Amino acid sequence: MLALVAKLNADPAVHGILVQLPLPPQIREEAVVHAIGSLKDVDAFHPENVGLLTLGQPRYYPCTPHGCIELLRRNGHDPAGRHVVVVGRSNIVGKPLAVMLMQKATAANPAGGDATVTVAHTRTANLARVCRQADILIAAVGKAGFVTADMVRPGAAVLDVGTNLSGGKLVGDVDPAVAAVAGALSPVPGGVGPMTITMLLANTARAAELIGGPVSG
Amino acid sequence: MLALVAKLNADPAVHGILVQLPLPPQIREEAVVHAIGSLKDVDAFHPENVGLLTLGQPRYYPCTPHGCIELLRRNGHDPAGRHVVVVGRSNIVGKPLAVMLMQKATAANPAGGDATVTVAHTRTANLARVCRQADILIAAVGKAGFVTADMVRPGAAVLDVGTNLSGGKLVGDVDPAVAAVAGALSPVPGGVGPMTITMLLANTARAAELIGGPVSG
Repeated sequence: MLALVAKLNADPAVHGILVQLPLPPQIREEAVVHAIGSLKDVDAFHPENVGLLTLGQPRYYPCTPHGCIELLRRNGHDPAGRHVVVVGRSNIVGKPLAVMLMQKATAANPAGGDATVTVAHTRTANLARVCRQADILIAAVGKAGFVTADMVRPGAAVLDVGTNLSGGKLVGDVDPAVAAVAGALSPVPGGVGPMTITMLLANTARAAELIGGPVSG
Repeated sequence: MLALVAKLNADPAVHGILVQLPLPPQIREEAVVHAIGSLKDVDAFHPENVGLLTLGQPRYYPCTPHGCIELLRRNGHDPAGRHVVVVGRSNIVGKPLAVMLMQKATAANPAGGDATVTVAHTRTANLARVCRQADILIAAVGKAGFVTADMVRPGAAVLDVGTNLSGGKLVGDVDPAVAAVAGALSPVPGGVGPMTITMLLANTARAAELIGGPVSG
């Protein structure tokens, strides 16, 4: 697998490399992900790209967090100056999303949210009370129906990042009863998921610009 | 300056390199900081080290955030399960400290705080109300006397990371009147400052372990 990554790193016709996770248990994910050349790392999982993001000098935005921010902005819920509560602290969603939301927006970092940000999780005391502060509540905890109506302030915007299989159906982290309380609620499927794919394509186009190399078509 | 950094990078008798910031305006700080070999980056400012920290796989902890967490723990204010409000979102203190506080503590990441974390800043709406939620309030905003008594819940632990010159004196971000409300308050000077220096020395010792090379004395 490392040999394949090395071959793709060296191939000037390849601009982006994504490793579909999870890998089988006998392969160390970290070793494979870190082997991807940082310029071809369109998932933005490489430590160098995570570091540049955290420093407010992103090369690539991670796809799901970026999709969340675009989805909010394009639906009239700009996080600037608002209190955003992120439930979940994963490396793929919660943590990078919180970092992006707290940063100022700059020319080099246009997705910066300029929000007040709280990161909560399953071990948060008084979770419902913490969540009810949110102007924008983001559920990224990976448990079906985890966010219930009592955790949502009436009128708040709720973004559901969960993708859980429940009885053969894809369901989010947000209980359907939240729809009656929230001012807006992203659906699962069809909400954040397609945004993730869109941002991955945007990163791949950006990689082609950064790397150069042969262009066809 | 880059030539000097390259020379120190190549010198096996040098284990840690720190650039005393700020640099004169004609020198790009970022170029110099990023030129330091990531194994000798005892400040943990290099994107790769910032990324590893954010991913919960730290090589070096940034000195001031790490000093804050040690100071809390060794004085009976473990952040685990508590609500910590960090005022400030700088690359040197606020952001990495928030990231460390929200992470689980693991063998590879013993400083992880396992706290509920809110990052607030000068543009936060209802800042006093947000701050009064804190079991532990951390002021890292760089403005003398910014945190006032009305922002502190009686009995809360308050950590003052500010180092501001005011009338020739070194003062923190916390108004002295907070001492009457807080359950604990770190002094300036003499609080976080010496912890930063201690953690820098700890990182340099760790660098020597990681790099190997000649040992004298």
